[in-house]
Amino acid sequence: MVTLVTGGAGFVGSHLVDHLIKKGDRVIVVDNLSSGEIKFIQKWIDSGDVIFQQCDLKDLETLKCVMYDPIGGEPVDIVYHLAANPDIRLGTTITDTDLKEGTIATYNVLESMRLAGVKKIAFSSSSVVYGEAKKMPTPENYGPLFPISLYGASKLASEALITSWVGTFGLQAWIFRFANIVGARGTHGVIFDFIHKLHNNRNQLEVLGNGLQEKSYMEVEDCAMSMIHVVENTNEQINCFNLGTNDTCSVRRIAEIVLEECKCGDAEIQYTGGDRGWAGDVPKSMLNPGRLIELGFEPNYTSEEAVRHTARCLVQEIGQP
Amino acid sequence: MVTLVTGGAGFVGSHLVDHLIKKGDRVIVVDNLSSGEIKFIQKWIDSGDVIFQQCDLKDLETLKCVMYDPIGGEPVDIVYHLAANPDIRLGTTITDTDLKEGTIATYNVLESMRLAGVKKIAFSSSSVVYGEAKKMPTPENYGPLFPISLYGASKLASEALITSWVGTFGLQAWIFRFANIVGARGTHGVIFDFIHKLHNNRNQLEVLGNGLQEKSYMEVEDCAMSMIHVVENTNEQINCFNLGTNDTCSVRRIAEIVLEECKCGDAEIQYTGGDRGWAGDVPKSMLNPGRLIELGFEPNYTSEEAVRHTARCLVQEIGQP
Repeated sequence: MVTLVTGGAGFVGSHLVDHLIKKGDRVIVVDNLSSGEIKFIQKWIDSGDVIFQQCDLKDLETLKCVMYDPIGGEPVDIVYHLAANPDIRLGTTITDTDLKEGTIATYNVLESMRLAGVKKIAFSSSSVVYGEAKKMPTPENYGPLFPISLYGASKLASEALITSWVGTFGLQAWIFRFANIVGARGTHGVIFDFIHKLHNNRNQLEVLGNGLQEKSYMEVEDCAMSMIHVVENTNEQINCFNLGTNDTCSVRRIAEIVLEECKCGDAEIQYTGGDRGWAGDVPKSMLNPGRLIELGFEPNYTSEEAVRHTARCLVQEIGQP
Repeated sequence: MVTLVTGGAGFVGSHLVDHLIKKGDRVIVVDNLSSGEIKFIQKWIDSGDVIFQQCDLKDLETLKCVMYDPIGGEPVDIVYHLAANPDIRLGTTITDTDLKEGTIATYNVLESMRLAGVKKIAFSSSSVVYGEAKKMPTPENYGPLFPISLYGASKLASEALITSWVGTFGLQAWIFRFANIVGARGTHGVIFDFIHKLHNNRNQLEVLGNGLQEKSYMEVEDCAMSMIHVVENTNEQINCFNLGTNDTCSVRRIAEIVLEECKCGDAEIQYTGGDRGWAGDVPKSMLNPGRLIELGFEPNYTSEEAVRHTARCLVQEIGQP
C-alpha cells in the first residue's frame, strides 16, 4: 500500500509515518519543513521506506505532481492530510495563516487528489471545531459547531471541503477530531512552553489564564495508532471519530507535573488570570471517545499519564532547565 | 443607522435593501455585478438612499476602504454579507469558485471589518450546511454538519470564520441558514430554469432527477423581512436562525405549477432519473423554523405559495413561453 502523508515530518505526522512503515506501507512524505523536521524521518529516508517530497501545500501545481507512486506511477492509495499551522494562538495576531495553511491547503490537497484519481483521505481535524461546547464529553454528532479560534475555523472549513468532495466526487473520508496531542518531538503547546519558560527562569513559571482550563490530552503514539486502527476497521463514506482519552487534565496540574519532571519544585507559579489563555482559547474541552473505544481501541495513556510522559520526553529533547 | 450590504444588487440583497431603506437605514451596497444587476437598486441610487460601490470581495485592499460611512467617515454600524456565487451546481465542474467567492470573500469581509472596527455582521448561510440531515425538520443545533456540495462547504467555512471572529475579536454575529429562497428578480434555481427550458421548447420540460426531491421554499421578501426582524430582536454574541417555511414542495409539484403559470399544460414532463438533480444536490431538506416563529415572525407565503408567486413574477420578468 502506498500512503501519502502531508506534514509527515511534523510532530504527529512523523509518529504516524513510524507506524505506517511498521505495518508495511510504502510512504511518501510531503512537507514544507516550516515546523516539521527532517531528522524525525531521516532513518526512514535512509532505509528507503520513505520518499520525501519537500513541497508547500499552498503550491497547487507542484502538489498535483506528487499524488502518484514514483515506482509504477499509479495514484497513491490514501492521503493522510496532517499538514497545518500548529500554533492556535497565532490567529490572534496574524489572521490569514490558518486560511492559507489550513483551508486553502486542504482545498489544494483535495483538488490534486481529484485530478489524480486518489479516492481516500484521512484528515487531522480537532476538538476545537466544537468551540465552547455545552455538552461534555462532546460526541461527534454535537451541534452547533461554532469554533472560536481561527485555527478551529480552518479545521471546520477543511472538514466541510472534505465532505463536499465525498458528496460531489465520490471520495471516501476519515475525519479525526484530535484532543490535545502531546508527546515526544512536540514543537509547541503548553508543556513545551512551560519547559522553555523554566529554561529562561527556573524559579518562576508564568501560566496564561487562571490555570483552571481543563482539557483531554492524548499521547501522540496513541493518536497515530488510533488513526490507523480506525481507517482499517471502518468503511462508511464519511467516518468521523473523536480521538482522545476518557478524562481531562487541568493546566494547573500540568504546571505541577512539569515542575516535578524539571526538578523545579521550588519555582513559584504565577497566573496571568482570566478563564482562558488567550482570545480564542477554549477553557474546557473533553471529547467523548466512545466510538473509538467501541471500535476496539484503548489508548495506552490517560490524560495525566500522557502529560507526564511528554514532560519527560521533552525534558530529554530540550534539556533539563 | 448605516448598513453595508455585500451582494446588495443581487437577488436577495436587493430585496433586503428595499426593506432596510423602508425602515430608515442609510445603505451602502457593495457588489461586483457578477450576478447582481444595478437596475434592482437604481431607484435607491437615484433617490440618494443607496451609495453604490462596485467592488469585488476578492480584492481585500479595496474592500478595506468601503467599511466607512462616506458621510462622516465613521465605520458602518453593521454588515449584511450576502455576496456569493449563487449557483450550487457550478461546483461540480469548477472547484475553486465557492472557495474564492465564498470562503475567501468572507475572510476578506471579516478582516476589513476588524481593521475598520465594525462590530456586527449578518450572514446569509444556507440549509445545505446540514448536508443530508438525518433529522427533519432540521433544527439549528443539528450535528454533524457534513455538507455535500462545494457551495455548502463554503457556507459552513464562512460560518466558522465568523464564529472565530466572534470568539477572537469580539464581533457580534447573526447567521441565517436559508431555505431555498425564491421570488421576483431571481436569476437562478429550479423555477427560473424551468421557465427558460419552456422558452426553448414549450411542449417538453426536462426535470433533473426523479422529481421527488422535496425542499422548503421561502419567498424572498419574507426572507429579507425575517433577517431584519431577527437582527432587531436578538442580542446574543452568536445568533443562528433557520429561515424557512414549515413545509416543503416537491420538484414534481414545482414542474406542475410552472406549467400552469406558463400556460403550457400540455407539455410532457421528462425526468432524467435518480434521487437528485446532480452530484452534491440534497434530495430532501426541511428546516425547522421554530426559533424564527417563536421570535414572532410568520412568513406570508407557504412553500407552495412561494413557488407559485415566484413562477408568476418570473413569467412577467422573462416573458410567457
